[in-house]
Amino acid sequence: MYTTIITPRVSETNGAGHISNTVVPIWFEAGRTEIYKIMTPNLSFGNWKLILVNMNVDYIKQIFLNADVEVKTWIERIGNKSFTVYEEMFQNGQICAKGTATYVYFNYEIQQSEVILQEVRTELAKHLYKK
Amino acid sequence: MYTTIITPRVSETNGAGHISNTVVPIWFEAGRTEIYKIMTPNLSFGNWKLILVNMNVDYIKQIFLNADVEVKTWIERIGNKSFTVYEEMFQNGQICAKGTATYVYFNYEIQQSEVILQEVRTELAKHLYKK
Amino acid sequence: MYTTIITPRVSETNGAGHISNTVVPIWFEAGRTEIYKIMTPNLSFGNWKLILVNMNVDYIKQIFLNADVEVKTWIERIGNKSFTVYEEMFQNGQICAKGTATYVYFNYEIQQSEVILQEVRTELAKHLYKK
Amino acid sequence: MYTTIITPRVSETNGAGHISNTVVPIWFEAGRTEIYKIMTPNLSFGNWKLILVNMNVDYIKQIFLNADVEVKTWIERIGNKSFTVYEEMFQNGQICAKGTATYVYFNYEIQQSEVILQEVRTELAKHLYKK
Repeated sequence: MYTTIITPRVSETNGAGHISNTVVPIWFEAGRTEIYKIMTPNLSFGNWKLILVNMNVDYIKQIFLNADVEVKTWIERIGNKSFTVYEEMFQNGQICAKGTATYVYFNYEIQQSEVILQEVRTELAKHLYKK
Repeated sequence: MYTTIITPRVSETNGAGHISNTVVPIWFEAGRTEIYKIMTPNLSFGNWKLILVNMNVDYIKQIFLNADVEVKTWIERIGNKSFTVYEEMFQNGQICAKGTATYVYFNYEIQQSEVILQEVRTELAKHLYKK
Repeated sequence: MYTTIITPRVSETNGAGHISNTVVPIWFEAGRTEIYKIMTPNLSFGNWKLILVNMNVDYIKQIFLNADVEVKTWIERIGNKSFTVYEEMFQNGQICAKGTATYVYFNYEIQQSEVILQEVRTELAKHLYKK
Repeated sequence: MYTTIITPRVSETNGAGHISNTVVPIWFEAGRTEIYKIMTPNLSFGNWKLILVNMNVDYIKQIFLNADVEVKTWIERIGNKSFTVYEEMFQNGQICAKGTATYVYFNYEIQQSEVILQEVRTELAKHLYKK
């Protein structure tokens, strides 16, 4: 499991007084940086390997500006050419959102999906979610 | 059905050369402005009525900077206290993303869900998605 | 002069109830898309030619969610290797923000500034701001 | 001086391969959170006290995804009803951007500027920039 601490920004609130719904996917993506590094250690886009195919977010509680947020990131499933990330978001010890993101292992040069390399698979497996 | 035309912005691309995944929910939300106006005609946050509880996006094709995007917005389901929006996103005549957003009719003052008003229900029903 | 119409999005408001300050530079950049096309007609990043060196914004009036915004974009100055854009932003007929953006004509491949091509200069000159 | 560490996000890059210009003002604003707390300790928008009137950013070096960024935040000037923040942004020990933000002390309820309270003034003065 990866843990990422996020300090909410004024620019991430909206007129309803809480963090904008559209910011939650951005924070969940921030939680996946270490996963990106498994595929692309130097985070260079010339060597990017992933393409998102599905994102699902459950919004459970409103998130506010005045306290840090903790994102927890696991691997839920590792398929042949794709894998799914599962994440939870907490503020003041309470779960506020949870969601999944499904990525296909993708070769941008030839614009095609590829089988996930064994070493990537091994690394991802270290972070599997156990119910 | 509502149609919203969106001109992609440089700031909405990412290092992989396409529109960022995190921008797609923002554009889908932009497509729902007319739905917000059914609840809150003047779009005043002091009278906001909706809270998002789930968002799901399928990413089908990469979206690029150099052509306008069309968002189509329907109502998929109207429940007692909640409803679901269904949306599709097109660029160059091809579907690039589709998704749903489920809202609860919410009273921010007392922080509780409420039954959707009949006049709101009637208005929403005019935009029902027909398969 | 270029004119760009922008429909404010809920995600662009902030907790103070108006459009976030950080969104104004994003909208001004949206106003510069036609200028980018002078350098890079297909808006392909593989052939990008500009790097921003300064941005200045005067915030004059608050901008709200409930009315379209008009961005007007001019060229203020054309130098040897750089040029400055001047922009104004209006809502309900009132000026709400104005600002400048100074770009250097830049070759990303060799990471160096270059003299602006004569044909680019001619095109930019068609949009000069006249006081 | 306040110091804020920021981990760049994939969603904050753009197609040119670096951090988007429009993200730099967002990160500088993130650096001002402690200043907002001087006026509004609980960061509640119902008691917000500031309105931005000018923002200026010099872009010095491109910023990339693969290393944390450090924002340093000082007070440059304290006037009667306004003050100016001065900020610098570093990546890998090199200055990448610097900028100012000028705020007016503002009463949102009556929509008018006000003289900055003495206790606020004293607190701001502790963070004055010394050349």
